[in-house]
Parts: sequence; structure tokens; C-alpha cells
Amino acid sequence: MLNKKVVKDIQSLNLKKHRVETGLFIAEGPKVVRELLQLIPEQFQRIYATDTWQKERKDWTPVPVETVTEDELQKISQLQTANQVLAVLKQLPVEKPVIENEWALYLDTIQDPGNFGTIIRIADWFGIKQIICSKGCADLYNSKVIQSTMASIARVKVWYDEEENWLSQQWLPVLAATLGGQSIFEQETITAGILLIGNESKGVRPDFIQKATHQITIPRIGEAESLNAAVATGIILSHLVKG
Amino acid sequence: MLNKKVVKDIQSLNLKKHRVETGLFIAEGPKVVRELLQLIPEQFQRIYATDTWQKERKDWTPVPVETVTEDELQKISQLQTANQVLAVLKQLPVEKPVIENEWALYLDTIQDPGNFGTIIRIADWFGIKQIICSKGCADLYNSKVIQSTMASIARVKVWYDEEENWLSQQWLPVLAATLGGQSIFEQETITAGILLIGNESKGVRPDFIQKATHQITIPRIGEAESLNAAVATGIILSHLVKG
Repeated sequence: MLNKKVVKDIQSLNLKKHRVETGLFIAEGPKVVRELLQLIPEQFQRIYATDTWQKERKDWTPVPVETVTEDELQKISQLQTANQVLAVLKQLPVEKPVIENEWALYLDTIQDPGNFGTIIRIADWFGIKQIICSKGCADLYNSKVIQSTMASIARVKVWYDEEENWLSQQWLPVLAATLGGQSIFEQETITAGILLIGNESKGVRPDFIQKATHQITIPRIGEAESLNAAVATGIILSHLVKG
Repeated sequence: MLNKKVVKDIQSLNLKKHRVETGLFIAEGPKVVRELLQLIPEQFQRIYATDTWQKERKDWTPVPVETVTEDELQKISQLQTANQVLAVLKQLPVEKPVIENEWALYLDTIQDPGNFGTIIRIADWFGIKQIICSKGCADLYNSKVIQSTMASIARVKVWYDEEENWLSQQWLPVLAATLGGQSIFEQETITAGILLIGNESKGVRPDFIQKATHQITIPRIGEAESLNAAVATGIILSHLVKG
């Protein structure tokens, strides 16, 4: 039986303010929780799970598990339909990233949590280990981001460039995705650098474009006005990393 | 002032059953409506718009426009927040597609309306003019599909292969996107064919894979378990069409 204070504390993690204050976040559903338990067991604070989850899980769980009813789980869940298990985790440690012989991603004001989560998964697919976010980006620990990254959040580091001066300090090539750059189909091979992706509707901010060494573009063969930001990130990365 | 029957009729278009019966669908918001008015004015049956929309629109509108209040618009809208204008349109004419010297897309059970709409936009970006859907795909006229395609719905034809025998009748190469095919980074140049994309979680069905002449794969460099279906479609198309 969950007491009222616990319910309220967990529900409050729906708000960024409370996530920042407590340094905690929530992950839900058997698949995400199982993968995170494998990758970052040390970050788990507590698990709330139904009997079903506990019967199906055969491995020993190195985290305190509290049994809850379906109704109790729904009360603390941020999903429309709660799904067997909810975990409260400590946020991951972060430090200012140093990028050397690799590709990294810089996101300028990616606001949609679903897009942001999908981009983290794409980065993980292509072996990108570091994402840097401008201060206007969605919060990494928003539940929609967590649910759409799957377990990639445990493999891809995300750092917020609150002062927005990180790019100016880099020596690697910075490739801004714009509508008027060089075709990615004709891009010379670059083996390391920073790919700069802009906001869903406004693109990369002009002062960020100035910090770029190159502008690159996905050639438009047909007539659609734009591509979704996550789709564009996937397409460009696939051409950069294939080198 | 909208009478109750009109409100009910428009609301009923939220259900596929009523869209099929009436042959109608809904598009909303100034941007989508403006573009569709340019591309397919002949499909419009009626527009319901607030004063704001009518004042801002300077061109003559070749369609009957009914003035509604914000509250009335919200009542008939399928958006969380109605946005100035809602149009009722006749569904587009369809015929069994003949593909010759071009790329086309075959979607096997793409169920998420947002993914489906995004794929239509990607197709439009890369100049694909025809999408064929297996019978389990989302409905083209679902409001989430319409809102995420933007005006691409007027340029890309979508045909439902209800008997699921269309692929067997084709002579062009059929490339199935799977996890165990040839790398798209090493793909020989093919100038025309059919790209076969599978369901978000299950992939392409085995009997559809058998109909394919090739299997292709986006190489995984990192560790994410999968890519979003729309992202994968964008990546593969960008490598196929670049010639």
C-alpha cells in the first residue's frame, strides 16, 4: 500500500522543477526497466511493480522492489496506461564534453520531447556517444523523452550548454544542417566533427550558423517543404558516418 | 451559427467508418488549408473559419466559407486547440498503381498515424510519387496522418493493396528493409524499384520478405536496438535516390 506522500512525491517528478530539485527521474514499462537494470543498476533508487512483473522477472533485482496494485501503479504512472513497473532513478552524472576523434551532435532548441528521444536513439544507432544541447532544448528527463529513447539514455551522454559558448571553444569541423548548404550526397569525407541540428520549425539560429565551418543540406528532389528534425538527423548522420 | 446536425456530421468524420461512408475527410489549420487550397481546390466541400482567418486570407477562396466562433470551431475540431480554420474535403481519387522508371514505397502494416504521415512527407521530399499500403496500415484520412503529412497528401498518391497481391505482380526490384540484409552503404546503384518497409515493432512480414528481390539494412555502428520506422525510411531513401 503506497502512502499519500510517496504517491505525491512520485507524481511531482512529472514536473522539471521537482526533477531538478530531487535529481531523480522516472522510467516505466518492463522493457525499458529491464534494459536500464542491466546497464545502470547503480542509478536505481526504487522500483514499484505489480505481482505480474515480479513473477515474470527471474533475475535477482539489485534494487528495493515495492509491490503495488494496478490501480496504485496507474496513480503514479505518467503513461496513459501504466505497464507493470515504474522505477525511480537518480539522474546520470554529467560533465562538460571533450570531443576528439569522433562525431558528436549539437542540438539547437529541439523542443519536442518525442523528437529529442528519437534523436538520442538515432545517435546510439550510429555510435555517437555525446549530444550537446542548447538551453532551449527539451528536458532529457521528461517522461516522453525517456520512453522514446528506450535504453539509449544509458549509452549516450547528454550535456546542456547553458551558457551557449561550447561551440566557440571547439577545433573540430562544425557542420550546420541548413536549407542552403552543400549536398550531403557530395560531401567530402570527414572522420570527426560536430553535427549541428536546429529547431523543428526555425532551423539553426543565425549566430549558431556563424559558428559552423560548413553548411550541409539534404537535397530535395520532390516538393515537401521540410523534413522532421529527427528524420533529418538520421539521414545526415547516415551519410557522415559511412565514410 | 452551426446547427446540431452539421456539428454531429463533422464530428463523425473522426471515425474511419464515417469517412468511408461519406468519402470525406478533414484538414485543419491555416497552413495546411492554404496549401491544399492551392493544390487541390476541387476537393474542398466547405470551409469553417473564424473571422481572424477570413481577414488574414487575402486571396479569393473558391469554396463556400462559413463563419464560426472560436467555441464552435473547437467543437468540430479534432485538434486539442482548434486553429482558425477547418475544411471538409472529398477524398482523393485512387487507382491501382503502375510503377515504371521510378522508386515507389510499399508499407507493410505501418500502424502509427504519426509515423505514416511523416513517411508520406519523406516520400514527397525525395520525389516518390506513389505509396502502396498493406491492409493493416493506418488510414490515410485519419486526422493525425493529415496533420503530419502537411500538404504532401496532395502530391503523393496512396493506394491500399487490400488483397495484398500487388507486390507479386511487379517486375521491378523489390528491396525489403530488414536487420540482416546488405548494407545500404554498399548498395549497387539501382535507378528504379520498390522499397518495402515493415511494421514499427515486427518488421516486414516473412511472406513479404519472400516477395523481395533484395534485403537491405542500415548498418548499426552503436547499440540501439532499433530505429523508428519513419527515420529508417528516410535514411534508406536518401541512399537509394542519390544515384
